[in-house]
Formats: sequence, C-alpha cells, structure tokens
Amino acid sequence: MRKVKFSVACTVDGFTAHEDGRLDGFLMEGDHAKDFFESQKEYDTVLMGRGCYDFGRKFGVTNPYPALAQYVFSTTLKESPDPNVKLVSGNAAGVVRELKSSPGKDIWLCGGSDFAASLFAEGLIDEIVVKLNPVVFGSGKSLFSGPIKQTDLELVGTKVYDNGVVLLHYVVKR
Amino acid sequence: MRKVKFSVACTVDGFTAHEDGRLDGFLMEGDHAKDFFESQKEYDTVLMGRGCYDFGRKFGVTNPYPALAQYVFSTTLKESPDPNVKLVSGNAAGVVRELKSSPGKDIWLCGGSDFAASLFAEGLIDEIVVKLNPVVFGSGKSLFSGPIKQTDLELVGTKVYDNGVVLLHYVVKR
Repeated sequence: MRKVKFSVACTVDGFTAHEDGRLDGFLMEGDHAKDFFESQKEYDTVLMGRGCYDFGRKFGVTNPYPALAQYVFSTTLKESPDPNVKLVSGNAAGVVRELKSSPGKDIWLCGGSDFAASLFAEGLIDEIVVKLNPVVFGSGKSLFSGPIKQTDLELVGTKVYDNGVVLLHYVVKR
Repeated sequence: MRKVKFSVACTVDGFTAHEDGRLDGFLMEGDHAKDFFESQKEYDTVLMGRGCYDFGRKFGVTNPYPALAQYVFSTTLKESPDPNVKLVSGNAAGVVRELKSSPGKDIWLCGGSDFAASLFAEGLIDEIVVKLNPVVFGSGKSLFSGPIKQTDLELVGTKVYDNGVVLLHYVVKR
C-alpha cells in the first residue's frame, strides 16, 4: 500500500500560510530546501487542494510538479487549467483510496489545510513531515483547517538545520 | 535586565490546551518532564494568565509554584485566591516591565495564550521554549490567542526525547 505523506512548511505557532495564502516568512533557501527537493524523489504523485494549487497559479504556474502525477482536488474548478494536472471534483477520499491501493511510489500531499484536514479525518494520511520554520505568524492557515480528532503521532526522525529550520517526521498512529 | 521566557507544551498543530483548558494528550512523564522541573531553577518568578492559573484551581491548587514569586493577571478576579499569589488587575505590561528591570533571576511565563499574545505584542517576551508533543488536537488554545505581528525567531537549542517530545528553544528577534 502506498503511503500518503503530508509534507509541509509550518510556523512555530502552527500556520502553513498567511490567511491570504502568502508564504513570506518561510525560509526558501538553505540545506532544508535542498533536502526537500531531494525528498521529492520518494514520490511519483502529488495531491493538491485548490488553495495549494492556486498559490502557483497566481504566478502563472499551472504545471508545478511536472515530474509527478498531479491531482488537484476542487469542487469549484470546472476544468483543469493544465493538461498535466488531473482535476478531481468529487469523492476525494475514494480517489485517494484508489491511488493508495494502486502500485507506485509514495504520494505527496502538499496542502492546503482544508483538504489535508478532510483526508486526515478519513484516515488517509500516513505520515506528517513538518519543516518547522523559526517564525511566528500569529494568524493564518492552520496545519489542519477543519474538524479532525485528537491523534497521537510517533516521531520517527528529526533534523536541525543551521538556519533554524527543524524537520520533524511523524507517523500517524491509528 | 531579566528575561521573560514563555515555556509551554504545544501540539504539532500549534495548540497549548484544548478549548476548555484540558491538557490530555500531552505527555506528562518522561525525561522531558524531569528537564522541565530542573529548568524551573532558572526562574524566581512566574507569570500566569487567569486561564493558566484556573487550570490548577479546578483541582484545588491555588499555590501552584510555591518556590517562585507568583503573579496572576486577571481583570475579572476581585482578589487573589491565595496569599502566595499576587493579583495584577490592570497595566499588565507596566507591571511586567517593572519586574524585568528589577533584580532577580529570569521570569517564567507559563500561559495562557491570550495573556502571552498581549505580552508578545508589547515586546515583553524574550524567549520561547516549546515542548512539542507528538500529537495533533485539531482545535484548542493556540500558542498565541490574540493579535501579534509576524516575528522571526532564532533557534538556540533543541533536544529530542525518546518519547517523541522535542524541545525547541528560540530567542525572539526584534
């Protein structure tokens, strides 16, 4: 069974983006960024909520991860803005379950927080990889925006970078 | 100048307590707890918001840190429930500024999150020590509940415990 890994940058106060989707304040350069790009080799598929996908679209990027099979989950988009990105308009959990049970590498969930909460609530997220940035936002998009149950995690790896980013790798306990 | 250190347990999704103040889900035993009690020797004074102080009061504890000078900040309490705890009803920032400029050891801010946000916004918190517990709550009291500005932190120390707690020690950049 392929794993779904929610790998995301986060502030010390638990925000993955500003309320309007901006990401300023997160460190974009350094060894953690190199490791992040290296880690993408674990995956052959990426799952994006619409908010996450729209972040790139604002800059004209409609094919953000060309090396991966790309899925955008949206109930409002009418058609995919790019032939390389598959639009999933309904039954997100069913589609993710089918992807997990089909052969392939692990699956990267890159956000957004509403979509992540819905997949977490369905028990479809296996691991959480947090790139904890040395910053507080005070407000913004939470790691999970939406109802999820209190859930224990198992810490399976950490890495501390010179720039103050801390990588925290957790397995979701069921 | 004495430092104010906000030292608090936190979930991976940024909550320091459940919405009703409960703390279940946080690990209370282990080496991180021993280190926490050891770290209290750095302080001679503790600052508590009312929500933080009330957590102990629910269990009949009105003198939670007898080794420290204790201050509870509240605009609703009429008098201190315990002769060992000083009630500050107004001008919280002024009182904390005065404490910081008076001689003594460092000052421990133990919460709650509204009070912490107000002190952070006033520039009165010097360091943040997060005991990151391997759990997500999904909702609850945020690290800071209240308006604070986006602020960079400097990571000055980390410790990873066998039980999955990660201690993260930050200096607030100004």
